[in-house]
This record gives sequence, C-alpha cells and structure tokens, in this order.
Amino acid sequence: MTCHRIEDIRVTPIAFDDPPLLNVSGCHQPMALRSIIEVEIEGGIVGLGESYGSRSVVGGIEALAPKMIGRDVMDLNALWHFGRETVPEDGGERRLPRVVAAIEVACWDAFGKATGRRVVDLMGGQVRDEVPFSAYLFYKFGRHHGAGEDDVWGEVLTPEQLVDEARRMVELYGFDALKLKAGVFDPEEEIAGLRALRGAFPDAPLRIDPNGGWHVHTTLKLLPELEELLEYLEDPTIGIPGMAVIQKATSLPLATNMCVVADDHLPPGIAQDAVRVILSDHHYWGGLQASRELGRICAIWGIGLSMHSNSHLGISLAAMAHLAAATPNLTYDCDTHYPWQTDEVIEGGKLAIEGGRLRLPEGPGLGVTLDRTALARLHRNYREAGLTARDDTSEMRKHRPGWIGGRPRY
Amino acid sequence: MTCHRIEDIRVTPIAFDDPPLLNVSGCHQPMALRSIIEVEIEGGIVGLGESYGSRSVVGGIEALAPKMIGRDVMDLNALWHFGRETVPEDGGERRLPRVVAAIEVACWDAFGKATGRRVVDLMGGQVRDEVPFSAYLFYKFGRHHGAGEDDVWGEVLTPEQLVDEARRMVELYGFDALKLKAGVFDPEEEIAGLRALRGAFPDAPLRIDPNGGWHVHTTLKLLPELEELLEYLEDPTIGIPGMAVIQKATSLPLATNMCVVADDHLPPGIAQDAVRVILSDHHYWGGLQASRELGRICAIWGIGLSMHSNSHLGISLAAMAHLAAATPNLTYDCDTHYPWQTDEVIEGGKLAIEGGRLRLPEGPGLGVTLDRTALARLHRNYREAGLTARDDTSEMRKHRPGWIGGRPRY
Repeated sequence: MTCHRIEDIRVTPIAFDDPPLLNVSGCHQPMALRSIIEVEIEGGIVGLGESYGSRSVVGGIEALAPKMIGRDVMDLNALWHFGRETVPEDGGERRLPRVVAAIEVACWDAFGKATGRRVVDLMGGQVRDEVPFSAYLFYKFGRHHGAGEDDVWGEVLTPEQLVDEARRMVELYGFDALKLKAGVFDPEEEIAGLRALRGAFPDAPLRIDPNGGWHVHTTLKLLPELEELLEYLEDPTIGIPGMAVIQKATSLPLATNMCVVADDHLPPGIAQDAVRVILSDHHYWGGLQASRELGRICAIWGIGLSMHSNSHLGISLAAMAHLAAATPNLTYDCDTHYPWQTDEVIEGGKLAIEGGRLRLPEGPGLGVTLDRTALARLHRNYREAGLTARDDTSEMRKHRPGWIGGRPRY
Repeated sequence: MTCHRIEDIRVTPIAFDDPPLLNVSGCHQPMALRSIIEVEIEGGIVGLGESYGSRSVVGGIEALAPKMIGRDVMDLNALWHFGRETVPEDGGERRLPRVVAAIEVACWDAFGKATGRRVVDLMGGQVRDEVPFSAYLFYKFGRHHGAGEDDVWGEVLTPEQLVDEARRMVELYGFDALKLKAGVFDPEEEIAGLRALRGAFPDAPLRIDPNGGWHVHTTLKLLPELEELLEYLEDPTIGIPGMAVIQKATSLPLATNMCVVADDHLPPGIAQDAVRVILSDHHYWGGLQASRELGRICAIWGIGLSMHSNSHLGISLAAMAHLAAATPNLTYDCDTHYPWQTDEVIEGGKLAIEGGRLRLPEGPGLGVTLDRTALARLHRNYREAGLTARDDTSEMRKHRPGWIGGRPRY
C-alpha cells in the first residue's frame, strides 16, 4: 500500500525588511524574522511551510523534525505525539502548537503535491473563489532609527496621515474593511483617527485593535463612541475576565487573538462569553487541521471567525488563503501584514491581492514554489541581523528613550 | 491538476436477520434495515458506506446524490451545502447529518482507494493497532414471535441467563468491558443483573444504558448502588436538564448518545455539565470528519469519548474502527452490535474481533470489498420484508399485547 514517507525536514530562519510600524509594545525592527520549513518525502517531493523565526520556535522545529523522519507525511497524530515529547512546556509561550503547525503545513503541501491535489481540496473543498482581506493600518514612523530617508509610506502619526495611508493601501489592493492597530496613542486620539477614516470611507467596515492596551474602565467609557464606528472591537483589554466584563456591557462583538489563542482558553472564554469573534491563526493554533476544527467550534458556538496575521511572506499567505477558502463560516475579511512586506521567498514574487481579494495560487499543494536564491539571500539577512527574537520595545527606545510599553497603558 | 470526480452514487437498502433483543421501546424485529452506499469516481473506483435503512434516510441519500455527480469526491463542503438544499429540516429527526454521513464515508473510502491510502491515514494517522470493543449485552426473548425454536443465544430475562450470555460473548470475542442494555425491567432487577455480572466478572468495567427509561428521582435514588458498580452511567433519563441534575449529584460520569447527539446540543450540554462521556457515532454526527472534530471538542472540554452503535454490518464496523484508530482520546472501549448479526455484506464474511479487539482490515480506503451476491440477497430480504422504518414497539406488542413503551417508564 502507498505511503508518503518523510525523508528530510529542513528549517531555514530568514529575515526581511519591515517598516517602523507602531503598536502597544513599541516599534517594528528593521528586520522581521521568519522561518521556512521544507518537508521532503519519497520521490523528492518537497512541501513548504512558513512560521515564526524566533530561536525558540526554530529550535523546537529542529528538535521535533528528526522524530518524523521515516513517518508518513499525513501522520499528524505522530507529529503531535512527538511534539509533546520534544517541545517542553514553557509556562505560557505555547511553543508546541507553533512548532507542530510549522511542520504540519509543509506536510499538507507535500501530500497535496504527491497526490496532485490542492490543499483547499484536502481541507474539505473550496467554498469561495477568492479570499477577502482587510487593510491593516498602522501608525508608523517615517523611517527606522538612523535611516537616511523616509520609506514610501512616510510618517503616519495623525488622523490626516492615517487617511492618506488608508487611501494608498486601498488604491493599491482594493480592500473593503479597514483595521487600525492601536494602543499607541491616547484612545481618544485613536478614535479621532477612526472618525477620520469613517469620513474618508463612509461604507468601510472599521476595526480597532489596541492589543490589550486599555483598562476595562477606559474601554467601558469609550463604548458609545466605538459602537457607532466599528464592526468589531479587538482585544481592548488583556484576559478573559476583563473581556467578559466589556462584552457584557455592549452588543459590539469583541474579537480576539490574545485571550483565546489555544485549546485551553476555549472552555473559559466561551463559558464567560468573553469573545464573539476569534481571529484564528494556523501558525499558533497548531496548523491547518487544528484551525479547521477551530472553525467548526466557532460554527457550533455561534462565534464569528476571521484570521490574524503577523509579518509574513507568500508561503504563509498561500496557507492562510487555502484554509480560508475551505472555511464556510469565515465571517469577516482576514487580516494580513502582506502589503507591508517588500521581500518574497516564493518564485514569481509577491502574490497579487486585487479588489481586496486573493485568488488561490494554481497548482497542487499550496501552489507556491520556493525561490532558492531569495531563500539564500534572506537567510544571509538573518545571519547578519543577529536577532533571535522580535523585540519591539528595545526598538522603540531608539526612537523614544525611556519608553516602557507594557499593558494596559490607558 | 488531479481531480477525483464523482460519476455515480448508488444506495441499496438491505435487511438482515436480527435477534429479538429488548430495550425500553420494545423488541428488535426479525429483520434490521440498513443501506449500502457506493460512490463511484473516475477510473471505476468505488467507495463504500453503510448507513440506516429507513425510508427517510434512504430517500435523503437519493435526493442528495444527484447533486454530487461531477463534484470532487473530497468536496465535503459541497456535500453539506447540497445536503442543506435537498434534505429539508424535519423538526427533530435530524436527517441531514445522517444523509451526509452515509455518502461521506463512501467518499473517504473512494479517495483512499484512489490514492492508495487507508482511511485511518487520511484521518490523522493510526494511534492504536487494534480498536477495543465492549460486549453489548441485551435482555432478549428466546425466539421471535411465531418462530419455531430458540436462536443460539436463547432466552435472557434473568440475572443467571444474563451471566450466561456474557460468558458466551466474552468466550467468543474476548471483550473486557460489559454493557447492559437496560430500561427493560424494574431498575432494581437490572441492578441485580449488574451485580450478577460483577460476581462473574470481578474486573470487567460495567456500564448500563436504560435509554432514558428512568425518572430523575428514580436515578438519584439508585446512584449509591450504581456508583459502586459502573465505569459510566449511560442516558438514565431523557434530556440535558435532567441529566445535569443527576450529574450534579454524582461523580459517576454520565454518558450519552441521546441528549447530546448533534452540534446544537453541545453548547447547552457543556454549559450545563450534563454529560462527561459522549458516545460518538459517525452515522448520525455527519460522518468521519465531523466525528473527528467532535473528538477534538471532547479533548478540549475534557469530555470522555467512546462510540455508539446500532445493528450494523462490516462496512460500518470498518469505518468505526478506522475512525477510532485515528482518535487519540478514545477513552472507553467502543460499543458494537456486530456479534448479534450473522449476515454480512463484505467479501470474506464477518470481520474477526479477537481479544475484544479489531485489527483494521488491510488495504486502501476502509479495506473492505462489497460482496455483490450478498448485497443482492440482502436487498431481496429488504423488498420481501416490506419495512420502511424500525418499529420495536409494534414488535413487542406481538409478544406482550397492550405494551405501550414510552419514556420514562420507571
């Protein structure tokens, strides 16, 4: 009987250009880290994955990978089993589902390529031709600390600059929904930003994500203004109990990628009615199959579903799109940082988002191919950058000495 | 790119011999109904499924099948979509997940055969070499009404006869756990049966399933005796609220295949802590993928998981075994009526349960092949029997005129 045995698993950490985007923790560094995973099976077929580039996750992948050599590429139960053996519990970092996910996506891609099937077909079948994404708006500095000149997006610190950024992004990509990464300024300033966006885009669904930067009492005071402006309010505060207090006070759906981010958050999150939208992310929920199951859970409990993103390249985008295209109950346009990235690691360069939508790349598996020249260049970047983890706080201190960050700030 | 297009879907209702087993509703009829589903894809590959034989389900399959012709065999989202279109809501009969499941299993079998992979491999990978089953003990009449002589099991109406039945079944199949179908006699008589089983099998995990035949207050009174005897108590009473009252009063896990049997039962069932074990059944939960997802839900919420059965033949048993073999959190031995059936519809005859365990049949897909001669014979049975639905109540009235049945009885 057929078997699709794993012969090799490789992980290559990479670093690529990232603009000085602001959030509650600080400022994006000039280089964002990521890792590219290759799962090679019998017949020389290579499946691709993309994940976090932190030393912690890359080290986990390196530890788990040897256990899977010789195993069937679809033996995801074995992947979890050996993951539990090799990726120790870490008291909150939740490496296991990240490490499993990194390899799992590449396994699906390899199995798809081996059987001539697209990942979306293996995930239950395509329910939408194109996957809708939202514009991910950030406050930002014009340039990185010490850089000679502003990047193409320039400085975005005022409502007017925010509207200019949104206009440019909508012009380039055609997004419908607009999401503001917040927690950077006083909430009233950020709401002024939302109002400016509402003025310039009267029909656009709006979202704001303070990344847990607000106190519960601050949020409760802001609710009347927010209810008038938003389609959902993402992570105003940290923790299920605080979110539950806010949700009880409003009909505005609360969304999260912070307080319900793992299996063991689902029972208390649901019991306390703390969130009405989950921003799923296969990179930390344990992969495509686990995320598919999360989608079913959301459908059963009547929870809205969208998709979270970190800075990422085209392999991640393709995986997100295949999953989203197979998810009947995707109730909101997905997030993506993709427009902020100029580098790419797949052949043919950046995937095209048009009309706010991405068509699945053609071909079996994820439909993308590794550009090995680009991979080598981005891996050189990684070695030269000398980073082992993302650190927005230290980066912010270069711009604003004495910056502390921390949550809640307001 | 490859596609595994569906070219034909056939459903054949069958009827096979069934002994006069007793339950809260009445008595099994001489013939049990079932249906055999064949999904044929390009290349002449035929996937097999087995499901209910009621006119209601068979009619649903016949209505849904034409919509799937030309669709990809793995397009389960389409199967659900067209199922919602063609299988009308029925106010409680829950045909849709039954009809979808009937076709879905055959789709997995076909896809497995087309790719040379076993269903267990496509379901996440095999976590156990053998699937453990329990002995499903019934009170029974010696013979069907009007029959000339007793069947090989004879009459089982007393504790002594029950022990004899258990001894015979354990001798033949090697089961560890013993489950008593109850709700037939006064609860104290059935508990006497359990005590007799405990005496004869000091180490066997025991279960009792009154099928909702008991009042809440009756059950509360019986709890001290039951706690001493059982590994779990299955459906003592009908409905989530009543089950929750009982569960609150005991540390004995309550199990169900009656009050949490569909997606929309999960939120209230979990919120009210009404059950601690779900007896899943892919035939009514919507198929193998949906049952896999149910398994994940049980793992997340810390609910035990086992498997329910109705009278069935080898295709169902193979599907149950593949699913169970791919389910890490199968916490109790599965139920099966298989030892009560003498007929078979697969080549090679009955699958062998040895040491209480079933090894997965070899070969791709489910690993079983249709015996077309047997299918024709069992279909003739069906036509001659003239039944359109199971009716244990009318059958019981032949033995006990004036029988009413109904729940709760005690």
